[in-house]
Amino acid sequence: MEIHFLGTGAGVPSKQRNGSATALRFLSGQKGAWLFDCGEATQHRLLDSTLRPPMFEAIFITHMHGDHIYGLPGFLGSRSFMGGTTPLTLYGPPGIKRFITISLEASGTYLNYPLFVNEVRAGEKIETDRGAVEVVKLDHTVLSFGYRFTEPARRGRVRKEYLVKKGLPPGPLYKQLQEKKDVVTEDGTVVRWKDALEPDRPGRVISIAGDTKPSKGSRTLAENAEVLIHEGTFSENLKDHAGQFGHSTAKEAAIIARDGKAKHLILTHISPRYEKELEILREEAAREFSNISVAYDGFVYKVK
Amino acid sequence: MEIHFLGTGAGVPSKQRNGSATALRFLSGQKGAWLFDCGEATQHRLLDSTLRPPMFEAIFITHMHGDHIYGLPGFLGSRSFMGGTTPLTLYGPPGIKRFITISLEASGTYLNYPLFVNEVRAGEKIETDRGAVEVVKLDHTVLSFGYRFTEPARRGRVRKEYLVKKGLPPGPLYKQLQEKKDVVTEDGTVVRWKDALEPDRPGRVISIAGDTKPSKGSRTLAENAEVLIHEGTFSENLKDHAGQFGHSTAKEAAIIARDGKAKHLILTHISPRYEKELEILREEAAREFSNISVAYDGFVYKVK
Repeated sequence: MEIHFLGTGAGVPSKQRNGSATALRFLSGQKGAWLFDCGEATQHRLLDSTLRPPMFEAIFITHMHGDHIYGLPGFLGSRSFMGGTTPLTLYGPPGIKRFITISLEASGTYLNYPLFVNEVRAGEKIETDRGAVEVVKLDHTVLSFGYRFTEPARRGRVRKEYLVKKGLPPGPLYKQLQEKKDVVTEDGTVVRWKDALEPDRPGRVISIAGDTKPSKGSRTLAENAEVLIHEGTFSENLKDHAGQFGHSTAKEAAIIARDGKAKHLILTHISPRYEKELEILREEAAREFSNISVAYDGFVYKVK
Repeated sequence: MEIHFLGTGAGVPSKQRNGSATALRFLSGQKGAWLFDCGEATQHRLLDSTLRPPMFEAIFITHMHGDHIYGLPGFLGSRSFMGGTTPLTLYGPPGIKRFITISLEASGTYLNYPLFVNEVRAGEKIETDRGAVEVVKLDHTVLSFGYRFTEPARRGRVRKEYLVKKGLPPGPLYKQLQEKKDVVTEDGTVVRWKDALEPDRPGRVISIAGDTKPSKGSRTLAENAEVLIHEGTFSENLKDHAGQFGHSTAKEAAIIARDGKAKHLILTHISPRYEKELEILREEAAREFSNISVAYDGFVYKVK
């Protein structure tokens, strides 16, 4: 999987950072991508990436603020104009359906693909072909969600050492074992897949938080996540201001990642005021948690 | 006056051309600007210009297609966020009010300035401090307007030669005459302002057309215009295609400008297919009318 940061700013767009949008691109199995939030000009940012609107299968909206949703009507229309015919599912807070319906209707936009719009509730678990997505309630000035995505459990690795000892060198039979089928070796020995495979590995967790101050929800998102994408809008000296407007400081996000044993924290939703002193945010966060990236528009993170 | 071309593309945004937006900037009297159409990411284009959202006094929407309106909610919100407190008036076709109301409401956007939204009808004449704007019906796939702006009549020039002959060399009294006040020279001669001034000059006309095929309305817009801004979406070999989708070719726009005795034609709303062969459009148009510019994003035209 790759995570593409398309918009990493807060509030109004600046030359450096656009309104929020993050894409999760799936590289194994069927190709495709998901989008989390869609600030104005997200489709413009895609022009500078390897992603195109028709690739997207689903969009998840964290909350209804303009810098997270105003790019939706244009994205949906262009996906059709650019030849997208496969279904698209949109998940978001109550109100998203009305906004989309009126926008497309007002502009006379006809979509050449089926669009499903689902207004979700906190605690809901969305099951998809790619894994499950838990809708987690956060704490912002308006209803705000985080999405905790868990891959399906991955099959356990082949116990190579054990198999070689059993007289089964690496070869086509390994694949059969991985498919959970017992095999018989040339000398008639039966090898059971249950003995040949390590236990299933849990799927990786990618959590994408909407705007929030530190909350129970952000801690839920962090828990054992492979990657936690969390806002770090302000530095510590504006901590009160951050809290008042339902935001987190970079340090607060780092504490959440650390306490939740997340493996990697990516800070986003950066206030324009830090453009020339971005290091402050990284430094304050790094004192609490070591594995941190500060996202920028165009940043692509490869999930290990 | 200056005309700033912020978005000169058609349909989906490309790296070169954004959705439609044109600003008219007033340089004399009170500073300010008007916006004609507001495609997605118009506020982003403003970041590369000398214009800022708070400067705008009025917005005129030609028609409801997404590439002309999807930038409105973000523009309106940012105008407030960036400190705009002066009133803004929005003119557009029926449906614009609902689109704006729902978009701002859905996103919880509060504006720190009074916003007036007027749904206009063809033939309507909008009177403003800056002059009159006539709403002209065009011929597109949906209701589409052009806006014909006429400056107030300008005061006639001072007849310098006549005044010098009368014994009045250039000086402070000239200003008094320009203000339509009679003056008395040092030797007691009375000079009447009516004799000292040439007749009032008619105000200049700037016409901005929305999407349209050649029509009675586009001809009305062209009539004696100082500047006609008109779409030239396609070249002649796609003339039928253009007509079918309610668009004009560059040549058709040139004929309209020529027949209407417009002084200058600026072609805009250029299909992305011409990015590498833009000369085709200019050449086909130039065979009919000599005073032509092909607009590009960032082009600033100074009205003479």
